[in-house]
Amino acid sequence: MERKDQKTLIGAGVARPDAIDKVRGEARFADDLVFPGMLHAAVVRSPHPHARILSIDTGEAAGCAGVLAVATARDIPGANIVHVVFDDQPALADDVVRYVGEPVAVVAAASRRAAKRAAELVRVSYEELPIVDHPERALEPEAPVIVADPEAAETGNLFNKMILRKGDAAGAFEQADVVVESTYETGYQEHAYLEPQGAVAVPEGSSGMAVYASAQCPFYVQNAVARVLDLPLSKVRIVQTSTGGAFGGKEDVPSLICSLASIAAAKVRRPVKLILDRSEDILTTSKRHPAIVRYRTAAKSDGTLLAVDVDVILNAGAYQTLSSAVLWRSLCTAAGPYRVPNVRVDARSVATNTVPNGAFRGFGSPQVIFPHESQMDRLADRLGIDRVEIRRRNLLRPGDITCTDQRIVDSVGAIQTLEMAAEMSKWAERGAEIARFNASQRERRRGLGVSSVIYGVGLGGKAPFLDKAGAAMKLEADGSISVAVGTVEMGQGLTTAMIQIAAEVLGVSVDQVRMAPVDTSRVPDSGPTVASRGTMMSGLAVLDAAKKLRERVETAAEQMEVPLDQIPSRMGDIARAMWFDNQDLAVEGWAKTEPVDWDPETGLGNVYAVYAYASHVAEVEVDVRTGETHVVDFIAVHDSGTILNRTLATGQVQGGVAQGIGFALMEEIPQRRGHLVVNGLTTYRIPTIQDVGNGAHVGFVEAPYAAGPFGAKGIGEVPLMAAHAAVAQAVAQAVGRQPTAYPLAPEAVRDLIRR
Amino acid sequence: MERKDQKTLIGAGVARPDAIDKVRGEARFADDLVFPGMLHAAVVRSPHPHARILSIDTGEAAGCAGVLAVATARDIPGANIVHVVFDDQPALADDVVRYVGEPVAVVAAASRRAAKRAAELVRVSYEELPIVDHPERALEPEAPVIVADPEAAETGNLFNKMILRKGDAAGAFEQADVVVESTYETGYQEHAYLEPQGAVAVPEGSSGMAVYASAQCPFYVQNAVARVLDLPLSKVRIVQTSTGGAFGGKEDVPSLICSLASIAAAKVRRPVKLILDRSEDILTTSKRHPAIVRYRTAAKSDGTLLAVDVDVILNAGAYQTLSSAVLWRSLCTAAGPYRVPNVRVDARSVATNTVPNGAFRGFGSPQVIFPHESQMDRLADRLGIDRVEIRRRNLLRPGDITCTDQRIVDSVGAIQTLEMAAEMSKWAERGAEIARFNASQRERRRGLGVSSVIYGVGLGGKAPFLDKAGAAMKLEADGSISVAVGTVEMGQGLTTAMIQIAAEVLGVSVDQVRMAPVDTSRVPDSGPTVASRGTMMSGLAVLDAAKKLRERVETAAEQMEVPLDQIPSRMGDIARAMWFDNQDLAVEGWAKTEPVDWDPETGLGNVYAVYAYASHVAEVEVDVRTGETHVVDFIAVHDSGTILNRTLATGQVQGGVAQGIGFALMEEIPQRRGHLVVNGLTTYRIPTIQDVGNGAHVGFVEAPYAAGPFGAKGIGEVPLMAAHAAVAQAVAQAVGRQPTAYPLAPEAVRDLIRR
Repeated sequence: MERKDQKTLIGAGVARPDAIDKVRGEARFADDLVFPGMLHAAVVRSPHPHARILSIDTGEAAGCAGVLAVATARDIPGANIVHVVFDDQPALADDVVRYVGEPVAVVAAASRRAAKRAAELVRVSYEELPIVDHPERALEPEAPVIVADPEAAETGNLFNKMILRKGDAAGAFEQADVVVESTYETGYQEHAYLEPQGAVAVPEGSSGMAVYASAQCPFYVQNAVARVLDLPLSKVRIVQTSTGGAFGGKEDVPSLICSLASIAAAKVRRPVKLILDRSEDILTTSKRHPAIVRYRTAAKSDGTLLAVDVDVILNAGAYQTLSSAVLWRSLCTAAGPYRVPNVRVDARSVATNTVPNGAFRGFGSPQVIFPHESQMDRLADRLGIDRVEIRRRNLLRPGDITCTDQRIVDSVGAIQTLEMAAEMSKWAERGAEIARFNASQRERRRGLGVSSVIYGVGLGGKAPFLDKAGAAMKLEADGSISVAVGTVEMGQGLTTAMIQIAAEVLGVSVDQVRMAPVDTSRVPDSGPTVASRGTMMSGLAVLDAAKKLRERVETAAEQMEVPLDQIPSRMGDIARAMWFDNQDLAVEGWAKTEPVDWDPETGLGNVYAVYAYASHVAEVEVDVRTGETHVVDFIAVHDSGTILNRTLATGQVQGGVAQGIGFALMEEIPQRRGHLVVNGLTTYRIPTIQDVGNGAHVGFVEAPYAAGPFGAKGIGEVPLMAAHAAVAQAVAQAVGRQPTAYPLAPEAVRDLIRR
Repeated sequence: MERKDQKTLIGAGVARPDAIDKVRGEARFADDLVFPGMLHAAVVRSPHPHARILSIDTGEAAGCAGVLAVATARDIPGANIVHVVFDDQPALADDVVRYVGEPVAVVAAASRRAAKRAAELVRVSYEELPIVDHPERALEPEAPVIVADPEAAETGNLFNKMILRKGDAAGAFEQADVVVESTYETGYQEHAYLEPQGAVAVPEGSSGMAVYASAQCPFYVQNAVARVLDLPLSKVRIVQTSTGGAFGGKEDVPSLICSLASIAAAKVRRPVKLILDRSEDILTTSKRHPAIVRYRTAAKSDGTLLAVDVDVILNAGAYQTLSSAVLWRSLCTAAGPYRVPNVRVDARSVATNTVPNGAFRGFGSPQVIFPHESQMDRLADRLGIDRVEIRRRNLLRPGDITCTDQRIVDSVGAIQTLEMAAEMSKWAERGAEIARFNASQRERRRGLGVSSVIYGVGLGGKAPFLDKAGAAMKLEADGSISVAVGTVEMGQGLTTAMIQIAAEVLGVSVDQVRMAPVDTSRVPDSGPTVASRGTMMSGLAVLDAAKKLRERVETAAEQMEVPLDQIPSRMGDIARAMWFDNQDLAVEGWAKTEPVDWDPETGLGNVYAVYAYASHVAEVEVDVRTGETHVVDFIAVHDSGTILNRTLATGQVQGGVAQGIGFALMEEIPQRRGHLVVNGLTTYRIPTIQDVGNGAHVGFVEAPYAAGPFGAKGIGEVPLMAAHAAVAQAVAQAVGRQPTAYPLAPEAVRDLIRR
């Protein structure tokens, strides 16, 4: 792409270079990698949800052909801890197992088959212990306390409790014209990334350990591996491999996967590859937290919200992992994108003998969005107000105060997303059309749902110390540009966005810019690639680096008497001259978040530097005999500030909408006494192309964020967050009843109709 | 190593981390590497020293089992040029071959064996052309002109001509009390690195090409590969693999090796490994330039030098590669480490139909050192002056003017090296001892030789644009340090020196510091790892980075009220606090050479920023019947400024002395009509442990260089440079006759005795 033909790259639909590699089969995923002398690992896992380990006999396994080592907790050179937020989780259980699938030993063998066979021969004898498998049960006084480390819990099985108190919620309820209340339950959602978890740990002699991993957060993994291996951070480097999707599932889990591979690799002093198969991945790695949310809403008769009173319970599973952070977002998001003067939220995450749950696109927010959007529709129905209109009356506008008492002024496009979604969907006319359709049909009913959401971009006031990002940039002697950042490409398009920013500032064509593979030893800690922060934070770091480089280039151009507007076409000459003059062609960029704060005593504060917004409209058809649902049409409108790449942003929305449809309509994992009842992707249904049809019609409200790169905020998680609620409300409208649980699978829809 | 027990790391014998990896078998060399889908390459080479290619038939080879591709010049995506200094050398010959072993095609196959077998089946038909195989013959008017590109030659087969004119040499000779003259010939020297040339080219899809290579100069290779592949530099990254020795042999040659591997990899879109076997490596890659040097020296009767008049002819082989740079060092070094008021040098490098010669430790200087030191001894003998004394009278001292008219003031320890060597060797007493020994023996004679040398550190006035270096450094959140530079560890100890510098400045222990693998995409162009510049230049860049980081650490310490002297013990806390505060923990260091200049019209100028010096004394025993020689004792004294690591510097001296002994006494490759007559290391003899005995007694004169890191200059090449001359002069003393050619193998010594 020649820059001279183009005024700006910002917003352009620049093609993803990583997509080309993937389509050609040239991208290398963790399982593609080979290293000299590489072994394969298999994990010995607990078959029990809660049990004491009496003994581990590795003798028979260790004697198998091709087996090089069987590592147990005793082989861990450093601490037997997988640090995420708390230190409660062991890499390999050495005393008590707390969930089905918890790692007990890891076998390293010449082939994956030999490793798996030997893993079955590791004899672990257990004494089963009483279990808790439901969070409400776990909170009962007589429940057995199952937490590993009391320091990582508030009390008993209560991992975390957070509160939000704004105004006088109790008083507001007393004075309300109308109060609606219900309890909402949502279950597990599996990330269902195309590529399962995987890593290869490669000992580098005196340089320590390199781990090649499918991971969202290489710097988390670096810390975790350094800890289990007892190495300085400088001697652990994490190299991200091409990552076939993540959606939060590769935020915390790779710290465990990479620790296991590293423990085995350190024992045998050879590279060890650990790849989970699909079933193992689904059964043993984190999912979206199942939630129980009791939600009361008070309003005036004109629909004006007066108060919300919310109790959130998240099933955290056996260890803390990210539950405290997930819960925090549930807390801050509980009131939705609305002006609510009085707010009371109690949010709790609870330990159970189930797989630890962690990050998933939306990160604790979908669990409260289903409730807050259902409540809006209940209110609208009760008051006879149009559902778009009731949102219009309550949505946050510039200058308004959020539920955490934060005044938001800059880049607040919530109301515009609603108006555009209403316009794109022809909301009013379509309602009439649907009514005609439904009147004409016996077995099919259609409904129209609308949802609006707010999303605090980045890590916010609970972990502001993670909101930083570095970039290394180098002008090559031919005028081409090398860039490295510490956040990752996992399919979302980060690489392309970074290339666009660098190319835009330096005036070169995008094919002259190359992003280096992410290697923790290469760039300063850029924080995790989560919270829809990648483009915003790494983008700011790349922007900083590019501007510094641009200054040097401009100085050189001046000396060469090259006019500023000719820099792009003369970049090669200028770079060559700078190189000949021994000028430093490398720069380093740095970005940190705008100040945020949060008071745990009240739950109030300027909790996020900026928010993204979205409003979705879904039309869903229901077969009233079978309960089958079908998304007829979908409109998704987002305010993520300036859109850097319209094609990629649209792709993010399409994918998020599909994942939201799956969450609302089909994705389900029953749990029975700590065992997940699921058999890979055969019994865990995710949407196919038939379920999403032609995809969403996407619109962007670009309310620019002055502190973001070229005005960009974040987008990644928001589409999923809004989509499921729009779909669920469309089903509700179709069948005439508000659902209180996901998924709205055919049986559940039939039940709803019969209720 | 805990820093608190130690005042300074500078000079300490810190152990080489890379040595531990090598001893354990954990270092990974190019041939150890495997990549998904990797193929193996074999090169089809010219059997003729000069011939026209009439046709290339790859059909049969391409049809062989396991063969994926046969690439010829037509498959090169970019320019068919291996750029080193000039553009005269093709990657794959497409019209004329100019030396035996020149690449014509490259086969990529599933195994090395399949590739080699197929390479034999590529049918190339040639029309043989007249050849020139001797540089003096090549300069005759009737010689066939064999240069590929007339632009890369002065005229005819004369590649390069350089002159040095200082004072009035002709007039000085007329007024001299004494004139000595001789012509000296030296032959090929093979680098004989433990690890042959090798590389793996790995296509990285839209990111371009990564090449993992055993290479001294990754940035040269990056340029070369970008050119043949027609890629921007940002899309070619060179990763240096553990390098099993180089000695200059991996300066220019890897550009060809990596280009060949990359051409094949680009054609098949799969990784391609190319490893030369030993015989192929010796026969087809560069060696030390054979030289013919006519040397006249004029002196006063007290031994004071008045003038030198030197004609240097180097046999460059078929292509330019580095010959112009090698010749330039011959030119500047021609007068040795002495005050010579009148100098005339004519230096020429000449094309012949032989393997292109290139860099080799000493880089054109040993070819003139053998002459200048032989001349000193001839003078001493003629004038009856002690050989140490005549050097003492002429050696450069601070404030003196070199042969290029450069006044040297700082860090001039030449005379101290001579005095220390004389003292360590008990020069005077030992002469008497040897005389008694010789008087007592019939068949054995001993001799004592002394040599003094000067070495301009770095690239000097001919290529000042290469004398720069960058470093990337990062303080990890636990206080450990990651460092990356662009110069390479090839056995010389660079990694250790860099770790010492970083640890010294930051006050951490050396095991907290890790050097990253060298990857051209990681650091700014650090120039080549040649010219004994690695420690000095990259050391300055690391120093610069470490000082910047230290400043930030001190600011943070001040805020934390940590006293400066407690920073080392509190580094972890400080780093953690800085990390929590979102401070930028990464820095970039930069260094460039002090100004140098050179006037090609006169050959004069401040040609190097600083010089290293050495004086060696060798005692050699000769068996007068067989001509066999045996080094009895060796003393090596060096001024390389401050010694950063005495153990490693001593190792460098020991290795260089061994290689110098080999050059003087045994290493030889006859050449017949363009064919090298050598059969691997069976017929190419290099010194074994038996030939170097207990090694040299090493002394250091540490004349600190104010502009170097902690006062360091360079050391790498100097030991070889001084050693061969000391040995040769010892043989001369033993047999009573001055040799005029290397090597002094038994036959040559017998001839010398009989002469």
